[in-house]
Amino acid sequence: MIEDKNQQRTDLGQLGEFGLIEHLTKNIEIKQPSTLTGIGDDAAVLDFKDKKTVVSTDLLIEGVHFDLAYVPLKHLGYKAVVVNVSDICAMNAKPTQITVSIAVSNRFPVEALEELYEGIKLGAKVYDVDIVGGDTTSSQKGMILSITAIGEADAEEIVYRNGANDNDLLVLTGDVGSAYMGLQVLEREKEVFKVNPNSQPDLDAYTYLIERQLKPEARKDVKELLKALEIKPTSMIDVSDGLSSEIIHLCKNSGVGCNLYEEKIPLDPEFINVCEEFNIDSTTVAINGGEDYELLFTIKQDDYDKLKGNPNFTVIGHMTKESEGIHLITRANTKIQLKARGWNALSNENNEQ
Amino acid sequence: MIEDKNQQRTDLGQLGEFGLIEHLTKNIEIKQPSTLTGIGDDAAVLDFKDKKTVVSTDLLIEGVHFDLAYVPLKHLGYKAVVVNVSDICAMNAKPTQITVSIAVSNRFPVEALEELYEGIKLGAKVYDVDIVGGDTTSSQKGMILSITAIGEADAEEIVYRNGANDNDLLVLTGDVGSAYMGLQVLEREKEVFKVNPNSQPDLDAYTYLIERQLKPEARKDVKELLKALEIKPTSMIDVSDGLSSEIIHLCKNSGVGCNLYEEKIPLDPEFINVCEEFNIDSTTVAINGGEDYELLFTIKQDDYDKLKGNPNFTVIGHMTKESEGIHLITRANTKIQLKARGWNALSNENNEQ
Repeated sequence: MIEDKNQQRTDLGQLGEFGLIEHLTKNIEIKQPSTLTGIGDDAAVLDFKDKKTVVSTDLLIEGVHFDLAYVPLKHLGYKAVVVNVSDICAMNAKPTQITVSIAVSNRFPVEALEELYEGIKLGAKVYDVDIVGGDTTSSQKGMILSITAIGEADAEEIVYRNGANDNDLLVLTGDVGSAYMGLQVLEREKEVFKVNPNSQPDLDAYTYLIERQLKPEARKDVKELLKALEIKPTSMIDVSDGLSSEIIHLCKNSGVGCNLYEEKIPLDPEFINVCEEFNIDSTTVAINGGEDYELLFTIKQDDYDKLKGNPNFTVIGHMTKESEGIHLITRANTKIQLKARGWNALSNENNEQ
Repeated sequence: MIEDKNQQRTDLGQLGEFGLIEHLTKNIEIKQPSTLTGIGDDAAVLDFKDKKTVVSTDLLIEGVHFDLAYVPLKHLGYKAVVVNVSDICAMNAKPTQITVSIAVSNRFPVEALEELYEGIKLGAKVYDVDIVGGDTTSSQKGMILSITAIGEADAEEIVYRNGANDNDLLVLTGDVGSAYMGLQVLEREKEVFKVNPNSQPDLDAYTYLIERQLKPEARKDVKELLKALEIKPTSMIDVSDGLSSEIIHLCKNSGVGCNLYEEKIPLDPEFINVCEEFNIDSTTVAINGGEDYELLFTIKQDDYDKLKGNPNFTVIGHMTKESEGIHLITRANTKIQLKARGWNALSNENNEQ
């Protein structure tokens, strides 16, 4: 998209650092009552009154976390907000503010940053968070995004990773694996495009998967859903690195084991079809593929009736004693030890030039 | 330093992403009463009770903001903390927490990250801030640091950029220009080293300047100093991009003009000597050189007696009506309009490969 020579192209140097920040952030509104001052001073000033403050941060690097060959900049901006908001949701807190730092090489014109910022602003609007600060600078290579998300919660609402107990039920929102298969579809299209730049991809059969990859949503709704059901999870985490990896996090932090049931893992029909098309085992992808941004949590057995049959939630297993280990129970009723094979940025890095 | 082949060298891939974060953050202690939970969950949980929360963020990129040819990694880590803490100090708030995100290419061994983290931990210790979160990932090229600093203050203590009035006095802590000249000295040594790798630099005459560049300190003491003097500044900013640029920020945000007096600008004797050696005008460097991390603020004329003769503070000018503009009054009593010629990362960026 930014390769289109017909589009307007304004060099970053024309605006300068201060000019660029001003240009990108000029229409940003403040809506959260907890935001006293946003962009424009040395720091933002926030007021959480008697609420606790929740803070999380993420760094996204071109070529490591995203590939601009198939990720439109607006989607990238949106997703960067979602990824961070998801961490706040995983504490059972309400996201309220974000800060946004961007570094780009001079390969990018001002228009590309505007596009990126459009996505960031849209994400901020959809998730009702204020953009209260940030930094814009140059990079030696590619695009770098660093977002910090801030949220608020009453002390008694906050859910940590360490509260799961033996016999608690393991619950997942939505379905898993689709974001990973969406990435496989996009990477295949990129290879086709390299061979024949005039090919017109027909992606109708992959709409859901591609949307899960390019425009995931954070489960901001879950806090309210659980509140309405009068359920407080005993532990919670978001599924960013893969179900398997997140289950291990919950178990290790809580000092428990887990049985995950293969037959219970919620999969989308489109996902199952595409796994067949790619000749990949759907369970392997469902437990190891990342970037689903669903929430994974544990509840007391007593709360089961409150949540039973609710389309937002699926019970996929139960916690055990730590000594029993962490296992997948297959459809054939065999026990396989779960390993953290989630997405690992450091093992597949590129060689530096 | 990291080129030394005799040193231990552990590939990043050996530890993996989770292993690396755990390894680097394992001994981090929590000291601030406002930190309820630090590293290890989806987000940190903080409690500022009736205080306001202050948040600032900065992105530092190798080759743009620092050059590892002459910045030891430990110093870099320390400085990254200082730069962010300085923004919190510039709000007249007390820094309390930081989050640290690091991206590195596989050029860096684990030992290099340990060195960097040593500096970050030292900075956190010296400034009494808790490291409560972060992210560690790979980059396509070089090292990237993103730090978010969080602080607290009573509502009535916070000082913004927009409160300066006509006739207020302009006050600076410490001296300016030395960090910039320290960089010039280091860059000269780098060039000498390229020509003759066996040259032994004699940097005794430049100790102060080099320290100002490599190990600057944030003026965390100023909040207490001003409180003891019963002075509340009307506006405040930290001097990161150069005095001239920061004065313009204060003026624009407050809707005032300013007269800055050349003869009043505090310069260190070593700085003056080195400017002569480099044949550079010291005033030009003092007003345009960045990275001093001193605080620049305005006070009511009535407060002058409280601060007069205090070695921490120098009155360097006064605010005027906006219509009078922003000027440097030279020793020869001529008026020169101040321009924001501060350090501009976007105008001197490198070409991407």
